[in-house]
Amino acid sequence: MKDLTPTVTTGPLPASRRVWHAGKRHPDIRIPMREIDLHSTAGEPPVTVYDSSGPYTDPEAEIAIDRGLPRLREGWVAARGDTESYGARHVKPEDNGFAEGARLVPEFPVCHAPRRAAGRRAVTQMAYARAGIVTPEMEFVAIRENLGRKAQAAKQARDGESFGAAIPDVITPEFVRDEIALGRAIIPANINHPEAEPMAIGRNFLVKINANIGNSAVTSSMAEEVEKMVWATRWGADTVMDLSTGRNIHNIRDWIIRNSSVPIGTVPLYQALEKVGGVAEDLSWEVFRDTLIEQAEQGVDYFTIHAGVRLHMIPMTVDRVTGIVSRGGSIMAKWCLHHHRESFLYEHFDEICDIARAYDVSFSLGDGLRPGSIADANDEAQFAELETLGELTQIAWAKDCQVMIEGPGHVPMHKIKANMDKQLQVCGEAPFYTLGPLTTDIAPGYDHITSGIGAAMIGWFGTAMLCYVTPKEHLGLPDRDDVKTGVITYKIAAHAADLAKGHPAAQIRDDALSRARFEFRWEDQFNLSLDPETARSMHDETLPKEAHKVAHFCSMCGPKFCSMKISHDIRADAQRDGMERMAEKFREGGNLYIPLEDKA
Amino acid sequence: MKDLTPTVTTGPLPASRRVWHAGKRHPDIRIPMREIDLHSTAGEPPVTVYDSSGPYTDPEAEIAIDRGLPRLREGWVAARGDTESYGARHVKPEDNGFAEGARLVPEFPVCHAPRRAAGRRAVTQMAYARAGIVTPEMEFVAIRENLGRKAQAAKQARDGESFGAAIPDVITPEFVRDEIALGRAIIPANINHPEAEPMAIGRNFLVKINANIGNSAVTSSMAEEVEKMVWATRWGADTVMDLSTGRNIHNIRDWIIRNSSVPIGTVPLYQALEKVGGVAEDLSWEVFRDTLIEQAEQGVDYFTIHAGVRLHMIPMTVDRVTGIVSRGGSIMAKWCLHHHRESFLYEHFDEICDIARAYDVSFSLGDGLRPGSIADANDEAQFAELETLGELTQIAWAKDCQVMIEGPGHVPMHKIKANMDKQLQVCGEAPFYTLGPLTTDIAPGYDHITSGIGAAMIGWFGTAMLCYVTPKEHLGLPDRDDVKTGVITYKIAAHAADLAKGHPAAQIRDDALSRARFEFRWEDQFNLSLDPETARSMHDETLPKEAHKVAHFCSMCGPKFCSMKISHDIRADAQRDGMERMAEKFREGGNLYIPLEDKA
Repeated sequence: MKDLTPTVTTGPLPASRRVWHAGKRHPDIRIPMREIDLHSTAGEPPVTVYDSSGPYTDPEAEIAIDRGLPRLREGWVAARGDTESYGARHVKPEDNGFAEGARLVPEFPVCHAPRRAAGRRAVTQMAYARAGIVTPEMEFVAIRENLGRKAQAAKQARDGESFGAAIPDVITPEFVRDEIALGRAIIPANINHPEAEPMAIGRNFLVKINANIGNSAVTSSMAEEVEKMVWATRWGADTVMDLSTGRNIHNIRDWIIRNSSVPIGTVPLYQALEKVGGVAEDLSWEVFRDTLIEQAEQGVDYFTIHAGVRLHMIPMTVDRVTGIVSRGGSIMAKWCLHHHRESFLYEHFDEICDIARAYDVSFSLGDGLRPGSIADANDEAQFAELETLGELTQIAWAKDCQVMIEGPGHVPMHKIKANMDKQLQVCGEAPFYTLGPLTTDIAPGYDHITSGIGAAMIGWFGTAMLCYVTPKEHLGLPDRDDVKTGVITYKIAAHAADLAKGHPAAQIRDDALSRARFEFRWEDQFNLSLDPETARSMHDETLPKEAHKVAHFCSMCGPKFCSMKISHDIRADAQRDGMERMAEKFREGGNLYIPLEDKA
Repeated sequence: MKDLTPTVTTGPLPASRRVWHAGKRHPDIRIPMREIDLHSTAGEPPVTVYDSSGPYTDPEAEIAIDRGLPRLREGWVAARGDTESYGARHVKPEDNGFAEGARLVPEFPVCHAPRRAAGRRAVTQMAYARAGIVTPEMEFVAIRENLGRKAQAAKQARDGESFGAAIPDVITPEFVRDEIALGRAIIPANINHPEAEPMAIGRNFLVKINANIGNSAVTSSMAEEVEKMVWATRWGADTVMDLSTGRNIHNIRDWIIRNSSVPIGTVPLYQALEKVGGVAEDLSWEVFRDTLIEQAEQGVDYFTIHAGVRLHMIPMTVDRVTGIVSRGGSIMAKWCLHHHRESFLYEHFDEICDIARAYDVSFSLGDGLRPGSIADANDEAQFAELETLGELTQIAWAKDCQVMIEGPGHVPMHKIKANMDKQLQVCGEAPFYTLGPLTTDIAPGYDHITSGIGAAMIGWFGTAMLCYVTPKEHLGLPDRDDVKTGVITYKIAAHAADLAKGHPAAQIRDDALSRARFEFRWEDQFNLSLDPETARSMHDETLPKEAHKVAHFCSMCGPKFCSMKISHDIRADAQRDGMERMAEKFREGGNLYIPLEDKA
């Protein structure tokens, strides 16, 4: 028993409480948010922020990793009466890479019988949306996205450039349904992952971020991966992809899914390749199909499917500086070349959709030919594949399957917008889900930053979810610290995008923090930040005493030079004298004055 | 003797040599660059990169901090025959904040008599440029900017969007002269700082970065600041601002300037305020003027002057969320309000120009009313000041003074371009020099990233120099690690901007690194990166053995999954079969094929 039950990080963030809003259409649903309390001197209500952290930050919740999270959506799925329990696929030795004995990660202790659609029905959120049904998932998402913005929206003028998105002032359940029905948003929600809290990915919703975790043949264990998942969601990951490639893939994934309150994505091809001993040319539709069912039964919420890599595109990559850098893309390219055949993923996409619709697994159509360097950005291979992804989107939609589209990669700033524009054009406004993009190749060790720049921009332009890049990109697997750095960097990018798009109420947190800064409420400044611990510890490096938490200065300028303190003096003068009288005085001030009215 | 001679970081970066190119017009000048050697298997010449590190990375150079750097430009200045040595101002007790005994930082051991213009002549690079003279500084800069691009330019197609900049294929000394004459670029080069290696700041040159250092009343010492300066330039800072605000300002600055191979900027107002005991209303033109001369004699290369903050603008800031956040701006606002008078900086700007032209101190016209929060971006106060900076630019140019314009601050992405457009419009294309901007307020502790996003974008749009922001922004003074993180982040932003603008040859380093990555030349990948130490150590965390430095995989995927390895197999197949025959085979491949020709 090498892998015992993992320990994960729990407990609330500073000054934060997990609170719940109730549904109206579905009064039994409880939608979580986080409220950050401010100091009493602020005279302001708590600031409500989106909360992806699940029960782990709730001190009332009982966390038992070996039992898994409460099955929140189980009743909702059952109530629809369109699914059935059935004799599931048996776990095979190859599912765990033939790991045995002490090398085998133990099975997850609780076994849940999987469900699937009864008959040939579609049990996807898209099918319900098209049928005019507002599911509890849709209402959950609507309330979650609003963050109580109704009360705030009146106060804050809309301001932004959304490049043709259609972001409403308030998200209603009907709006969610419409967006899902149109394919412009997805709710990744496998019926076999009822532990997850529903969330939406779409251009008219808050920009989301994904964190990749997963072991490899070279490193890391189940306990580490479970903790990385909890840790990533604590800091704001909206979904987590388990990209494990070593042994024990099946069992590790079970531990992750049963304990995850966010949707879990995978690249089933990775596990399929393990099953054929790592020899790409030995892959077959049968092995792949078996893997899809295995993972759908476990509850994977979205599958990356590299069905856009087609035989005729491969020569387009031969003169590239970095060839094919997507693992899935290169595996499929090798298979196609070896057999000199069209990709089995492309040829069987219809059947793949049939599996997805029976469990509501969403698609993340993989960009197997994404550029791996600045030199290869926006080339023929990349855009040829994107057009194919557009074709596949239509096939999936015809089967009521939910779809998002993966995007690059490495792209210099001046070529980023073309990616978004083309994706919108050829993929019918299906949500875009990009990796960065990295805006230069010259900073390994800092690719969270090279890519955070591109991510913020493409998020602004309309990308619905940003896949994080950690400092270890190109160098190694991220550890716990790297995961946090990646998540925080991408929360910055996503939030900067929300601000620039003009999401109603997105600026509330910025304004609250800025007021705290201006009023020297240091604790509030820390607590409102994306990473209170880091903000506080940096402040305390130079001014550690408690008295400095109320000091009207910091170590940057010291008390004499503090511009904010001087600004307060100015404001106090203005209040004492009356702003109007003060302005009068300025008007009298002489010939240098430009009348204020003329400038309004 | 608390402060002994500082120890600074010396020695070359990995696989790097400092090399020199000779001038043609001025054959005696030697222009430094850095060459990074690649592994012999690469079959590629060394990669030449811009080098701001000065003699410190040259193992041949003898470094003696207590004697200062060689006085590179002394002969050039003397040869012009338009300056004179004179009885300089004596150092006064208030110059060092009345520090005495053990608290007084020792004077720099070598005393150089300052020079100034003979008579009322202008000794600025702008004056020479307008007179049609190509100075050694201008030729130095031309060769430095080219980085041997002449040989490379033919190979690399120009690609980018420069928003109306006029970036030539090759920078000639005449082009530099023209840009300086037009005011579109500056070479900050005080005649009393002959140790500095000339560099240009302008929209048609490589984007530059500035690092702020400096002690405060609360923390840090002379030795630390000198090392921070050397350390910042080692990683790529093109200029350094000494923003010290505590005691010993004069003596610390002397140590910094005498050992700096990059231009040094200051905010003279900070020292002036110290001289009047920190009471803003006690400032006077006389104290300020005395400080300008003191600093000009020491060799400060550019002054931030907050002359754009005018009396009538102050009421515009009262309803802001964060008031006035520029220290200089708030000091001047307080002075103006207290005396109810127009700013003495504005009223005496003409005389300030007379001082600057006698030493060739460039101006960085300060944005005292820059926004300190997302809420305050692009408001009336900010743009009113910017218009005034445009006025002041004309006054300075009329006196042959070199000028750049400071910009924000905190700006959401959708409001960034308006800043650049307005600056170009109202400031006659004088170089823009921005602090970030930060694209959200919610991530203290990560403001190098929130601002790196904005910096990359505004650099692309045309900003000539980006002032770094470190992780400690808003929280404390940066230490050595923070300085490095800030510099690397801003090198990323500046380089991403160069790529997007389409600077000729900017992509050479990206391509070289990407080829190294694709060919598993791990050492080359580390050595070509902005921070080789960090890249290497991150790689070695999981694969420390020497054998892994040539491994055809890394810890991310392990050997079976490596997409690059598979790409190599594909390329090898293609080479074996002949690419044309392979493409033929694809064409025969059947009905799924879309002819390649149709897609060109």
